[in-house]
Amino acid sequence: MTDTTSNQMWGGRFAAGPDAIMEAINASIGFDQRMAAQDIAGSRAHAAMLAATGVITDSDAQAIREGLLTVLSEIEAGNFAFSTALEDIHMNVEARLKEIIGEPAGRLHTGRSRNDQVATDFKLWVRDQLDAAESGLLALIGALLSQAEAGADWVMPGFTHLQTAQPVTWGHHMMAYVEMFGRDLSRVRDARARMNESPLGAAALAGTSFPIDRDMTAKALGFDRPAANSLDAVSDRDFALEFLSTASICAMHLSRFAEELVIWSSAQFRFVALSDRFSTGSSIMPQKKNPDAAELIRAKVGRIYGANTALMMVMKGLPLTYSKDMQEDKEQVFDAADNWMLALAAMEGMVRDMSANRDSLAAAAGSGFSTATDLADWLVRVLGLPFRDAHHVTGALVARAESRGCDLPDLTLAEMQEAHAGITADVYSVLGVENSVNSRTSYGGTAPAQVRAQVQRWKDMLG
Amino acid sequence: MTDTTSNQMWGGRFAAGPDAIMEAINASIGFDQRMAAQDIAGSRAHAAMLAATGVITDSDAQAIREGLLTVLSEIEAGNFAFSTALEDIHMNVEARLKEIIGEPAGRLHTGRSRNDQVATDFKLWVRDQLDAAESGLLALIGALLSQAEAGADWVMPGFTHLQTAQPVTWGHHMMAYVEMFGRDLSRVRDARARMNESPLGAAALAGTSFPIDRDMTAKALGFDRPAANSLDAVSDRDFALEFLSTASICAMHLSRFAEELVIWSSAQFRFVALSDRFSTGSSIMPQKKNPDAAELIRAKVGRIYGANTALMMVMKGLPLTYSKDMQEDKEQVFDAADNWMLALAAMEGMVRDMSANRDSLAAAAGSGFSTATDLADWLVRVLGLPFRDAHHVTGALVARAESRGCDLPDLTLAEMQEAHAGITADVYSVLGVENSVNSRTSYGGTAPAQVRAQVQRWKDMLG
Amino acid sequence: MTDTTSNQMWGGRFAAGPDAIMEAINASIGFDQRMAAQDIAGSRAHAAMLAATGVITDSDAQAIREGLLTVLSEIEAGNFAFSTALEDIHMNVEARLKEIIGEPAGRLHTGRSRNDQVATDFKLWVRDQLDAAESGLLALIGALLSQAEAGADWVMPGFTHLQTAQPVTWGHHMMAYVEMFGRDLSRVRDARARMNESPLGAAALAGTSFPIDRDMTAKALGFDRPAANSLDAVSDRDFALEFLSTASICAMHLSRFAEELVIWSSAQFRFVALSDRFSTGSSIMPQKKNPDAAELIRAKVGRIYGANTALMMVMKGLPLTYSKDMQEDKEQVFDAADNWMLALAAMEGMVRDMSANRDSLAAAAGSGFSTATDLADWLVRVLGLPFRDAHHVTGALVARAESRGCDLPDLTLAEMQEAHAGITADVYSVLGVENSVNSRTSYGGTAPAQVRAQVQRWKDMLG
Amino acid sequence: MTDTTSNQMWGGRFAAGPDAIMEAINASIGFDQRMAAQDIAGSRAHAAMLAATGVITDSDAQAIREGLLTVLSEIEAGNFAFSTALEDIHMNVEARLKEIIGEPAGRLHTGRSRNDQVATDFKLWVRDQLDAAESGLLALIGALLSQAEAGADWVMPGFTHLQTAQPVTWGHHMMAYVEMFGRDLSRVRDARARMNESPLGAAALAGTSFPIDRDMTAKALGFDRPAANSLDAVSDRDFALEFLSTASICAMHLSRFAEELVIWSSAQFRFVALSDRFSTGSSIMPQKKNPDAAELIRAKVGRIYGANTALMMVMKGLPLTYSKDMQEDKEQVFDAADNWMLALAAMEGMVRDMSANRDSLAAAAGSGFSTATDLADWLVRVLGLPFRDAHHVTGALVARAESRGCDLPDLTLAEMQEAHAGITADVYSVLGVENSVNSRTSYGGTAPAQVRAQVQRWKDMLG
Repeated sequence: MTDTTSNQMWGGRFAAGPDAIMEAINASIGFDQRMAAQDIAGSRAHAAMLAATGVITDSDAQAIREGLLTVLSEIEAGNFAFSTALEDIHMNVEARLKEIIGEPAGRLHTGRSRNDQVATDFKLWVRDQLDAAESGLLALIGALLSQAEAGADWVMPGFTHLQTAQPVTWGHHMMAYVEMFGRDLSRVRDARARMNESPLGAAALAGTSFPIDRDMTAKALGFDRPAANSLDAVSDRDFALEFLSTASICAMHLSRFAEELVIWSSAQFRFVALSDRFSTGSSIMPQKKNPDAAELIRAKVGRIYGANTALMMVMKGLPLTYSKDMQEDKEQVFDAADNWMLALAAMEGMVRDMSANRDSLAAAAGSGFSTATDLADWLVRVLGLPFRDAHHVTGALVARAESRGCDLPDLTLAEMQEAHAGITADVYSVLGVENSVNSRTSYGGTAPAQVRAQVQRWKDMLG
Repeated sequence: MTDTTSNQMWGGRFAAGPDAIMEAINASIGFDQRMAAQDIAGSRAHAAMLAATGVITDSDAQAIREGLLTVLSEIEAGNFAFSTALEDIHMNVEARLKEIIGEPAGRLHTGRSRNDQVATDFKLWVRDQLDAAESGLLALIGALLSQAEAGADWVMPGFTHLQTAQPVTWGHHMMAYVEMFGRDLSRVRDARARMNESPLGAAALAGTSFPIDRDMTAKALGFDRPAANSLDAVSDRDFALEFLSTASICAMHLSRFAEELVIWSSAQFRFVALSDRFSTGSSIMPQKKNPDAAELIRAKVGRIYGANTALMMVMKGLPLTYSKDMQEDKEQVFDAADNWMLALAAMEGMVRDMSANRDSLAAAAGSGFSTATDLADWLVRVLGLPFRDAHHVTGALVARAESRGCDLPDLTLAEMQEAHAGITADVYSVLGVENSVNSRTSYGGTAPAQVRAQVQRWKDMLG
Repeated sequence: MTDTTSNQMWGGRFAAGPDAIMEAINASIGFDQRMAAQDIAGSRAHAAMLAATGVITDSDAQAIREGLLTVLSEIEAGNFAFSTALEDIHMNVEARLKEIIGEPAGRLHTGRSRNDQVATDFKLWVRDQLDAAESGLLALIGALLSQAEAGADWVMPGFTHLQTAQPVTWGHHMMAYVEMFGRDLSRVRDARARMNESPLGAAALAGTSFPIDRDMTAKALGFDRPAANSLDAVSDRDFALEFLSTASICAMHLSRFAEELVIWSSAQFRFVALSDRFSTGSSIMPQKKNPDAAELIRAKVGRIYGANTALMMVMKGLPLTYSKDMQEDKEQVFDAADNWMLALAAMEGMVRDMSANRDSLAAAAGSGFSTATDLADWLVRVLGLPFRDAHHVTGALVARAESRGCDLPDLTLAEMQEAHAGITADVYSVLGVENSVNSRTSYGGTAPAQVRAQVQRWKDMLG
Repeated sequence: MTDTTSNQMWGGRFAAGPDAIMEAINASIGFDQRMAAQDIAGSRAHAAMLAATGVITDSDAQAIREGLLTVLSEIEAGNFAFSTALEDIHMNVEARLKEIIGEPAGRLHTGRSRNDQVATDFKLWVRDQLDAAESGLLALIGALLSQAEAGADWVMPGFTHLQTAQPVTWGHHMMAYVEMFGRDLSRVRDARARMNESPLGAAALAGTSFPIDRDMTAKALGFDRPAANSLDAVSDRDFALEFLSTASICAMHLSRFAEELVIWSSAQFRFVALSDRFSTGSSIMPQKKNPDAAELIRAKVGRIYGANTALMMVMKGLPLTYSKDMQEDKEQVFDAADNWMLALAAMEGMVRDMSANRDSLAAAAGSGFSTATDLADWLVRVLGLPFRDAHHVTGALVARAESRGCDLPDLTLAEMQEAHAGITADVYSVLGVENSVNSRTSYGGTAPAQVRAQVQRWKDMLG
């Protein structure tokens, strides 16, 4: 195909052609070619509507629609020569269409503009990614549910401040992430529902005098309705920002889990073994098994939130309607989407592959006076002490055990009674890790029965 | 009240007291006292539940609940001496409660922890702000609808790249912002629905062995249900981040409108006159009438998104469950909420007060060959030219008019026909600004009838 | 060349090969191939040093150094088949070197590691970009000096709040940007001096027992000295963050100038005409001449600061030393550097090409009571009024002129004297725009003589 | 003092007074009162200069300068009634001055404006903070040098990917942070030197016609010179952004160290014991000793970088010169400065107080095949193997030891020789942790002698 410049397509107004710098800063074809399928789908819907409303003939529409399929197949086959001089995907497709079908190609752009066209293309692309994120989240939740089910009663330390606080179960910990990714899923679905309005037909910014049918194109492209204000339709990038915000919060969740996997994989913790396929070695230290995938996932929140920052700053203070600044939207969203999907897939793979080291978990769960709270609760429940008093008694006993270098159950009853005379031998029944975990039966608590009930609730919800 | 240190409340473990630096970095009472009402509401609900489930006596619950009301009235009256040594609002309230009611105060903390308590307080606070944001958005939308209704047919330039593109109407421009703030409203409501789960009863992190009724406290506090995983309940800050994301996108919309108001207020544009109450003077230039409120609103997106960035970075890579890092959440959200509400109120006030300069708007709408597109569309519609050809003909005529220093309607028919022989005198009927605006009747277009229909649709929706 | 996997190069530890997801998330060769020249320069310096210190033989070093040149020429000629399985540029180069020279290639990695190697490569790359930024800034400053010199006495409005405040000169306004970009230049130079320490020889993290000479490699690569702590050397990314911070502040300056160019290009301002080469047309509005380059430059601060945010968030909370998270550093810096250089070049081009519309500038300078301050100053200087009193008198006269619809010089002496009896006809001598501008001779003021002195000062400084 | 409104001070232009919303969004006195000392210092220097240049009389200057000292003492004593209606610190001070000295107060504002006044005040404030940061960094470096000196030869694991890589020393690890904070110190000094130009005398934006002496006020206020362009002087906020960038990078370093301290304090690592004064307990888990200060320091990078983001976004796209948006600069910088200083002080305190657990460190240093690299290096050095081959042999031996559940030194010579026939008993000499550490004598390496040399170098540099 010939490399007619898009400058020529604008008409003859400009004396000077854009030079290399301007081409470099202005052209978007290097990245917006990723929206080729969406661009062609939008144009095909538009052509069908133009014919249905009598703006163009059926035969022109037919030629356009078939020609566009030819262009699409060329692009998909890798046989399409993208031209930087033609600036963007829209011009590249249209120029090629003209080569294939000739004069009718010139009628396609009736009643629309690049402004509503690019908004439509980009929305379709983002909508696809929201669907992909939904799939990725469901798969990850599935992997977590499997881990939770298997380890509903494996004890491990529950941490606050990375200090052992109270014993919990592996399944309970996995289900915490199910809740997080479940909220992400909910945000993805809300974002999709909110953004699913069609910009097509907003034209340059004011709508058009051609008798177009925006409901028809909206329906053909899977939108719920046409956007209700043409100025807004071409200047709105909320859908991109909400995509990035949603991705950022999800990536933050991934970073927390990844951090735990890195710490848990250390020689000091040994809570978990990651599979070889998600680890790597070192060029100089042959013994290393590095949690590379976890570290890279941990980093993705930076990249994705960086994209969010970039687009927020781009949009700040832009007057209506379309400004060229907005062309910076796509690379940020493309990169964030790619990395989000990759991080979800890698995390799912890691979760499916990883194996908990039950012995290390159990040993750690029992250390560090982790059932001190159970002791304090016993003092409240059985002896009727106010909580704060029970707390003081428990603190004294922990200090005693610490100074003796033993654990709470190792204190003698006499030692116990020095701290509070009313303590009886029954107290030993609550100091074991298993007892502790099994006792926490409040809704959402760590008791294995609670964990299994939550696993079942999620399975039922996800069908 | 005495200033017993919270260090004393933890129990006797620490030999050394926190010194000044530690107190300065650790204490939160300087800011979390804003959650006093929420803290007390949560404690009152908790006490009632503890009595209902038999964990404490009815008389203790009664004493606690009444004592808490006394504390609240002291705080509201400004008679409460907050103590930094008591670190946070929870400890301050509880210590004062103990002074008032004595021993039963020590039973309040049964079956809960500061971790679920602070999560509950903060969620209640954020939920109140989401409700305030809803009110602020509704008021702002109301002000915009009034402007839109009044100016449904006032012509003004529609801009792309801050260049006149096509004539639009004042009402249409106002309605673009109604769409934006309408999406913000939708995001606020989604965020509220998603976050409305009660953390109370998650205790430190693992749930509790006391036979608490989490549904009862959830219901008493207006939550839809208890949070389903206790680890997640105490480590989740999604509700704060979604609040900040939602506020950020809304603040971005405000920044765009504010930018327009600043530009429109310039001597060169004179599109709008802001009221004196939202403008200020200069200490050295007495003639200045500066759009200060608009500029400050424009800046708020930075502040609010800065808070979002801060909290995202804080949460990045935190292992479960609670880490003290999270204490940094509140000041960011408080500041963002205050500034969001203020910006919404100031924008509403400015919109209600401002008056469009209809003459300047109309004059600007007609300049700059703003009906060139109408000419091109006429060539397509009447002469059947393909759009791209019509575009070239129009470009030639614009160039001709520009070189003559006249507008398109000032070209003679002969000049028109030099560009394309088929042009007839009928072409002049589409070149006027009013004609242009009235012709754009596609759904969501700028035609006054369309604008009025959209105003009505919004009024119907908002009741 | 064969596609041996880098997994094979680590040694035989791993049973399972990395699958597609892991390869996608882990491999860096897709982007770090941009550091090929730096990698090869580093390896050549290392080989020469290994020979000079007797660690390897001269003939091995010779073979390695020549082989590396061959690899470089293959890469530069586009004949190099990069392998994703070999993960990164270091492995790709070394594997190819082994194919070319055989066994001695295996000796190159003695006394170093990928950790110090990648830090060295990346530092060299960033240093090159700092040099490029210096050139770009100098060129842009040169273009601004030309504009300033030409228009040292062209009057224009000085704005605060986008309201006309006082008359200034075009040259003075251009010189404000010279100061900003001059500070950017100073930051670039400071950053370069600070980062110019060689990581090479830090090895994996602990240094090495081989008798290497780090001063020799540092000198060969143009570093001022070797980095003084091996742990820091492999985990430091300050140089990348300081690059991004410096670029961000400069991009903010560019965004301010770009905003002015967009506003100045509007039909309402008409202060400046941008050249065709840095403007574009519209697909539907043939008359538009859009300041696309200015808008894209305005947007770049978002992109560059987004990269800064991304890397800051990646580095937050990483324990020493190297973590795989850090691999996310390069794409952010590459993208920011490319866009910074492009924005500098585009701005320089726009500044060189643009022409000020002196008539519009002068007309705007004189409107809006812009010499009210001169009047107030006259009242202070000549009549001895306290400033605040003079301010009130001036305010009254402005109000009078505004209500009459005239400018200050159009008020009669009688009207003047109604506001203050002491005013004499001499007052009219300070009310003209030219008088105003010429009078502001304080150091750094807008008087043309001051502007010309500043232009000369900068020319002298830049040589 | 009376509460005259600043609206009254602007002059009589405005019919309507600002209402509550406007006052809330517009007034800065709530925060800019922190600059009272700087404001008064600037005004005193200005008054002295006005007298020296004959613009005002010596007696007026004397009255102003003494009156300002009275105002300052009232503020410092807490006896000053700040008025929101007077908007900002400048108006508050000047109004009070007028009450004290009467008419001469009105002459103070001659030849300046609020624009250059606020820029001067804020620069002085930021400069003070840079000096405070220098002190804080020097103290922290001092604490680290003490730790490094004490533990120059205490072995500990050197980590990559949080996996044990090679043994290093405690002192070496501390010195890595000395390098980081040393670069921060260097950035602080560069920032101070760059920003130390006086805006005073730039007046509103254009300079002034009064014969002021900007060098005199610059010198009096400790500036190196007056800013060279008046437009730039009132619109420049680079000094604030460079402060925030510098603080952000330093806070990132602090977050890395804090993360290590949190991990090292865990029961699983036990590398370090933090003092009680920088730890806290838990309301429900009496045994907990939480590294709260470390966690809060870790979080500060979010807060400080959030401030950076806020101000970058505020400044993005602002046309020259002063816009009210810029009023948002101070709260961000104040909050970031407070938290930076606090984090530096808390970290210094923690470092001084903390004690390394030498036994845990040594035990961890020796585990995980941490001297595998030493083995590989021995194979290269003694047997002359190419590095990659040595790597393979080592990998095989590690795999063997791992399968046997022993460490490398526990393998028999026969087992060694199965992997490579040339291995001799001499190999055992390099496998010990102490040997490993002592052997890494390359410049900047971990050998104790190197560490001590670096400690000495820093002591010499810091005097």
